[in-house]
Amino acid sequence: MQDKKAAIAVVGAGSWGTALAIVLADNAHEVRLWSHNEDQVKEINEFHTNKKYLPEIILPELIVGYASLSDALVGVETVILAVPTKAIREVLGKIRAVHGDPITIAHVSKGIEPDTLLRITEMIKEEMPKDLLMDVVVLSGPSHAEEVSLRHPTTVTVASENMEAAEKIQDLFINHNFRVYTNSDVIGVEIGGALKNIIALAAGITDGLGYGDNAKAALMTRGLAEIARLGTKMGANPLTFSGLTGIGDLIVTCTSVHSRNWRAGNLLGKGKTLDEVLDNMGMVVEGVRTTKAAYQLAKKYDVTMPITSALYNVLFNDKNPKDAVDVLMARGKTHEMEDLVNVLDEKNTED
Amino acid sequence: MQDKKAAIAVVGAGSWGTALAIVLADNAHEVRLWSHNEDQVKEINEFHTNKKYLPEIILPELIVGYASLSDALVGVETVILAVPTKAIREVLGKIRAVHGDPITIAHVSKGIEPDTLLRITEMIKEEMPKDLLMDVVVLSGPSHAEEVSLRHPTTVTVASENMEAAEKIQDLFINHNFRVYTNSDVIGVEIGGALKNIIALAAGITDGLGYGDNAKAALMTRGLAEIARLGTKMGANPLTFSGLTGIGDLIVTCTSVHSRNWRAGNLLGKGKTLDEVLDNMGMVVEGVRTTKAAYQLAKKYDVTMPITSALYNVLFNDKNPKDAVDVLMARGKTHEMEDLVNVLDEKNTED
Repeated sequence: MQDKKAAIAVVGAGSWGTALAIVLADNAHEVRLWSHNEDQVKEINEFHTNKKYLPEIILPELIVGYASLSDALVGVETVILAVPTKAIREVLGKIRAVHGDPITIAHVSKGIEPDTLLRITEMIKEEMPKDLLMDVVVLSGPSHAEEVSLRHPTTVTVASENMEAAEKIQDLFINHNFRVYTNSDVIGVEIGGALKNIIALAAGITDGLGYGDNAKAALMTRGLAEIARLGTKMGANPLTFSGLTGIGDLIVTCTSVHSRNWRAGNLLGKGKTLDEVLDNMGMVVEGVRTTKAAYQLAKKYDVTMPITSALYNVLFNDKNPKDAVDVLMARGKTHEMEDLVNVLDEKNTED
Repeated sequence: MQDKKAAIAVVGAGSWGTALAIVLADNAHEVRLWSHNEDQVKEINEFHTNKKYLPEIILPELIVGYASLSDALVGVETVILAVPTKAIREVLGKIRAVHGDPITIAHVSKGIEPDTLLRITEMIKEEMPKDLLMDVVVLSGPSHAEEVSLRHPTTVTVASENMEAAEKIQDLFINHNFRVYTNSDVIGVEIGGALKNIIALAAGITDGLGYGDNAKAALMTRGLAEIARLGTKMGANPLTFSGLTGIGDLIVTCTSVHSRNWRAGNLLGKGKTLDEVLDNMGMVVEGVRTTKAAYQLAKKYDVTMPITSALYNVLFNDKNPKDAVDVLMARGKTHEMEDLVNVLDEKNTED
C-alpha cells in the first residue's frame, strides 16, 4: 500500500460509477472504469470525458476506460459495482466468468429485486461462489453524482457484516470533500437507500400536482415512517433510518432538481402516463421497480405502507395520481404516534 | 356548539396568525384577529386583506380585525396566540389585564426564551394566573403560512398535557385541507419546532456558500440528531423528532423558498453580516434568538450540539461561515452510529 496503490475496478460508467471513479482517482488510485459501451470507453480514454452522464467534467487521467471486463479485473481485489439493479445479475455473471481470484465487491446501487425480494448484497452472495467473494459492502447516502464530480462536500455511509471490509472501502474513498462513515446495519442501509426512491416518486407527484412544500414535507415524514416500519421488521436497526442513508438520502432525493425519481414523479403529477415518463427520462428510474418490490415486501412482512400502496396503484393499476394523494392526505388517524410508535411495536414483536 | 359557534380570538396578525384565522373562518368560526397596528386592523376590516403578510389573499368575512384586545376577548374561551417569541410576555400581560374568565391558550410560535431557557408553554404558565388559564396547547408542524392561506394541503400537530384540550383545538382547525394530529409530547413538539430554525439558518449558509444538496442533506440529518439528543435529555419522546414537528418541519424550513430563517442564513453564507441580514429581512428571524437559547441549553444539559455551536460562533462571535461549515464537514467521527446512538444513550441516562 506504500508506493503503488492497487488498481480498483469500477464496473458501470453511468453518472454514479463515474463520480465515484473520480473520488478514487483524486485519492491517487488507478481506476479501471468498465462500460459495455465501446464508444463511451473510447470517449473516456481519448477525451477524458463522459458527456452523456457528467457533461461538465474532465476526468482525471488515473481513470482508464475498459471495454473488456477481464482486462479490467486483472490483479484487482476490489470491485465497485455501479450498475442498475436490473443489470446486476447479468454483470455478476460476467465477473464470475472472467475472474478467478477472490474479490471484495462494494455495490453502490439502490433497489430491491421484484419477486425474489432480495436486497443487492443478497443478490451478490447468491450469484458469486463463496471462494470468489471475500466480502460484500454497500455504499449509500445523500450523494448526487453531479455534485460529487464537482467535489462538493458529500457524506456517505459504508456498511458490511464485516466491519474490516467496510473500513477498507472507507479508506479507499475518504477525502476532504467526500466523508465516509461506517455502519454495521447492512439491511437498514440497503432498505433506506432503495425505498426512498418510492417516496421521491410520490413527492414528485405532489409537486407536479402543485400541492406545495407543506404537503411534500408531510409525505416525506410519513414516507420515512413507513420505510422504517418495514425495515425494522426485516431486521434493521431503526436508528439507521434517522441517519445519512435514511432521512439524509430521502431529503436529497425528494428535494433536489438532480433526482430522476422526483422528476419522473413530477411528470406523472402533471398528467403524463408511466410509459411517456419512462420514454422521456432516458435513464433508469429505479423507484418504479422498487415500488413493485416494496409493495410485495409490505404484504410479505404484513406492514402497513400507505404511500407505497398508493403509488403502486398509480404506476401499475392506472389509478389517478390526484385521487391517490388526496386519499393519503385525508387518512383517518388522528393521533400522530399511531404512525410512529408502530416502528417500535413492530421491533418488539420481532424480539 | 350546534347553531352558533363560539368566537375565537387570534392574537397576532402576522402571516401565520392570519393564515390560521383563515382556517378557522373556513370552518365557520367567528374569528377576532387582533393586531397592535391600527392601520392593519382597518385594512382587514375595510378591504379584507393583510397585504404586508399575505399579499395574494382575500380574507373571509368571518375574520374581523380588532385593535382593542379587551373587545376581542369578550366572551372568548379560546385564544390562538400567534406573536413572535420576543413579544409573548408583553402580550400575555395585556391579556391578563383585560380578561377575567378562564381561557385555553393555543400558541403557534416557535422559539425558546434566551436566558430563562423556557419553552413557550412554560412562559404562558408563568405569566398567566392559574385561575385564568384552563389549558395550554401548542400547534406546530410543517406549515408555511402562504400555502395554508392558499388552502394547499397541510398537516400539523397539536400537543398538550391535557389531551382533551388538544382534541378541542384539533376540532376547531381540522378540515379537508388542514389535517390536525394530536400528540401528548409537549416538550418534543416545542423543542423540534423551535430548534429546526437553527438548522434552517445553517442550511441557508451552506446553500449561500454554494455547497450543494448533498452537503445540505448531511447537515439536516445531523441537525435532527442533535435536536433529538437535546430534546430527549429534556424529557421529550425521541419518536416525536421523527414526526411532523421534527423532521417534517425541518424539511419544510430548510428547503423552501418561503423560509425566513433559510433566507437569512443564505445571506450570511453570501457574506452579509448579521446586522445587514436582519435589516434586509424586515420580519422576525426566530432562529437567531433560538440559537442563543439552544447554545445555553446544550451547556445546561451537557449535550454535544456541533451545528448549534458553530452557528452561535458565526452569529455572535464573528466566526467566518465558511470556516465553521468546513469544520463541521471534517469532523473526526467515522462510525455513523456515534451520532445517532447518543439519542438513546442520553435517554437511558435519564431513566
